[in-house]
This record gives sequence, structure tokens and C-alpha cells, in this order.
Amino acid sequence: MPTLYYAPGSCARASHIALREAGAEFDLQLVDFAKAEQRGDAYRQVNPKGRVPALATDRGILTETPAILAYIAQSYPDAHLAPMNDPFEFARLQAFTAYLCGTVHVGHAHIRRGERWADDPAAIAEMKRKAPEVVASCFRLIEDELFAGPWVMGDNYSIADPYLFTITQWLPIHKLDSAQYPKIHDHERRMLTRSAVASAIRAEEAS
Amino acid sequence: MPTLYYAPGSCARASHIALREAGAEFDLQLVDFAKAEQRGDAYRQVNPKGRVPALATDRGILTETPAILAYIAQSYPDAHLAPMNDPFEFARLQAFTAYLCGTVHVGHAHIRRGERWADDPAAIAEMKRKAPEVVASCFRLIEDELFAGPWVMGDNYSIADPYLFTITQWLPIHKLDSAQYPKIHDHERRMLTRSAVASAIRAEEAS
Repeated sequence: MPTLYYAPGSCARASHIALREAGAEFDLQLVDFAKAEQRGDAYRQVNPKGRVPALATDRGILTETPAILAYIAQSYPDAHLAPMNDPFEFARLQAFTAYLCGTVHVGHAHIRRGERWADDPAAIAEMKRKAPEVVASCFRLIEDELFAGPWVMGDNYSIADPYLFTITQWLPIHKLDSAQYPKIHDHERRMLTRSAVASAIRAEEAS
Repeated sequence: MPTLYYAPGSCARASHIALREAGAEFDLQLVDFAKAEQRGDAYRQVNPKGRVPALATDRGILTETPAILAYIAQSYPDAHLAPMNDPFEFARLQAFTAYLCGTVHVGHAHIRRGERWADDPAAIAEMKRKAPEVVASCFRLIEDELFAGPWVMGDNYSIADPYLFTITQWLPIHKLDSAQYPKIHDHERRMLTRSAVASAIRAEEAS
């Protein structure tokens, strides 16, 4: 049975929801950021990058949200979470998860994790100041160009949906409101009615 | 026949090499960064993100290096560029390409593209100063933890190899020398002897 290493509300929530949507049996293992466990020796044995999520499987450990999401889709094919047998549609889906991982999440991270890219406190403060503008421009692009509707990729719910939902829920950190993006706002609302989503949030909040 | 939109020496080189390794027939279309064509209206019709690579296929346009690389592997299965039918091994491979996309390339980008995350010139200068340290720590992690050898993922050459090679070639921008990382250095040397790599570099330099 796989074990998902997570921190509540982090990007690991995307994989957490996807596991529930897939009907997978899995264990949850909290990585306590308040105790800096993600940088501790024990967790470094799991993921030397010191980040969540990590998914421990019977064959070894997987990291990186886009990789874990595609793994879940491919391992639980009956849940139809990705068009694995259509290279073009699968690539379109992966372009979306790569954008969330490499651009949107990174833009977000500059508000709290500026020390990854600068030491000078003034530079870190400047990144923090600009982060909401960066995140807003990403959400504008998603709203106007990338979101197909009714689900992210079109008619079929996929691994892109919990990933977008997870990052949408970070907008208040930037004092942004998802209502500025009608399609994304409606998506967030519909996601909150899904039992997999509600169960994932409940389990994380209980931790 | 697909068309790859690229800029010489950019991360599009990874997809360019992979297309050649796959034996694909394709066209190359230069996006001239010196003329800021990536931000022009014509290219925005191709990729509203204003970035390379983009791969125009007969079904539409694909973006994001990890997505395009997996698409090439899946579309040209005889080249065996990814273990598509083994969800765990494919996810291990995708974790590597996601790390290059979301962490290593991003760390690199802070040396030249700091204006993405700050407006203040002093903050941009500070990111530029720290970028080599960030990139060095990423390459240390790849060398010590992620690189299986002889190829990135182990015995089989894969889409991870041209992607790592492409970013390894950026080390001099940071005044870093791949010789600091013996496995990666040997990998770079072996990559340079492959005809697909030599042909890709030659075609980009001729542009």
C-alpha cells in the first residue's frame, strides 16, 4: 500500500485528492513543517530534496507532483484520470501540470520562500511584494487561454483538476480572490462538492 | 510533420535532440529572442506563454519541455526513449524531468530573467549573484542522488538525457564547470559524441 508524505494544504494535496479519486488504498504520513521535518535527516532519506509530496511505493519512492499524478492515473486506469493512450491529449494534460509546477507554483513560492533565490532581506521582501502580481498573471492566462471547461482539460475530469484546485486555494495568501477568474472560481466551487476533495481536506485538517 | 519552435541553446534543445533520437521528420522554426519575437503577436498565437519550446503537431500545439519529451517518447515507441508501459519507471523518469523544469531551470533563470519575480534592480542583481550557488546545489544533488548511470535513469538512454545535457551546457553561464560533477561531466562528453546531439547543435548554430 503506498504512503503519501504530505504537509497540510501544500501541493501534496493534489496527489492526495488524486489518490482518493482513484479509489486507491494508501497511508498518509505527515511531514511537520513547523518542526522543519522536511529538512531533517529522517525525511532526507525519503526525499533528499527536502520537499513534499513523496509517494513511497512497493518499488521505491516517487517525487514531484506532475510525476506522481501521472503515476496515479496510470496505476489506477479504471478511474480514467488521464488519457494515457492518446499521446497528444496526454501531452496537453502534462503541459498543464508542468505549467502549474514550473511557473505557477514557482511564482507563488516567491512570497514565502524567497530565500531559495536570494540572501539579502531587501531582495526577499521585493519578491514577496511582486509575487501576487506574478500569480495573478498566471491565473489570468489559465482563465483566458488554458482552461477548457467544464473541467480543466475539457469534458473529462483528470489529474489536472485537483492540481489546479490545490493552487487556487493559495490565492488568499496573495490577497487574490478566485472570483476574479469566473471559470476557475466555478471550478473551485464544484471541486469542493466532490467527496474525494472533502475527504482529503478533512484528513489534512485532522493532522 | 511537426514543427519545433526553438531558440538556439535554449531548453528547446532537449526536445530538438529527442526528435532526432526518435528518428522523427520535423521542421525547425527559429524564434528570434534578439528581436523579442517570443513576445510578439505572431508567436503569442502559437504559445500565449511567450516561451519556447512549442511543438506544432497536426492536432494542435504542445508546450512545456517535460510534456513534449514524453510526447516524443510515446509517439515514436520504436526509439525506446521512455518506459511508457511501466508506471513506476515512467514516474521516476518524469520526476527527473519535473525537477529539471521546476527547480533547476528555474534556479538558472534567476541569473538572466530576474525581472520575472522582482522589479527593483537591486533585487534582480541579488538573484543574479546567488543563481550560481542555486544551480551548483542542484547539480550536486543530481550528481550525488539522482544520476543512476551510465545514462541518467540507468542502463537505458531516455528523454532525461538530452534534457540534462541541455542544462549542463548552461553551467559556464554561472562560471561553473561540469568537471566538478564527474558523472555529469562524463555524461556530457558521451552526449557530444551522439550524432543526434551533434546534428541538433549544428542546426541551431546555423540558424
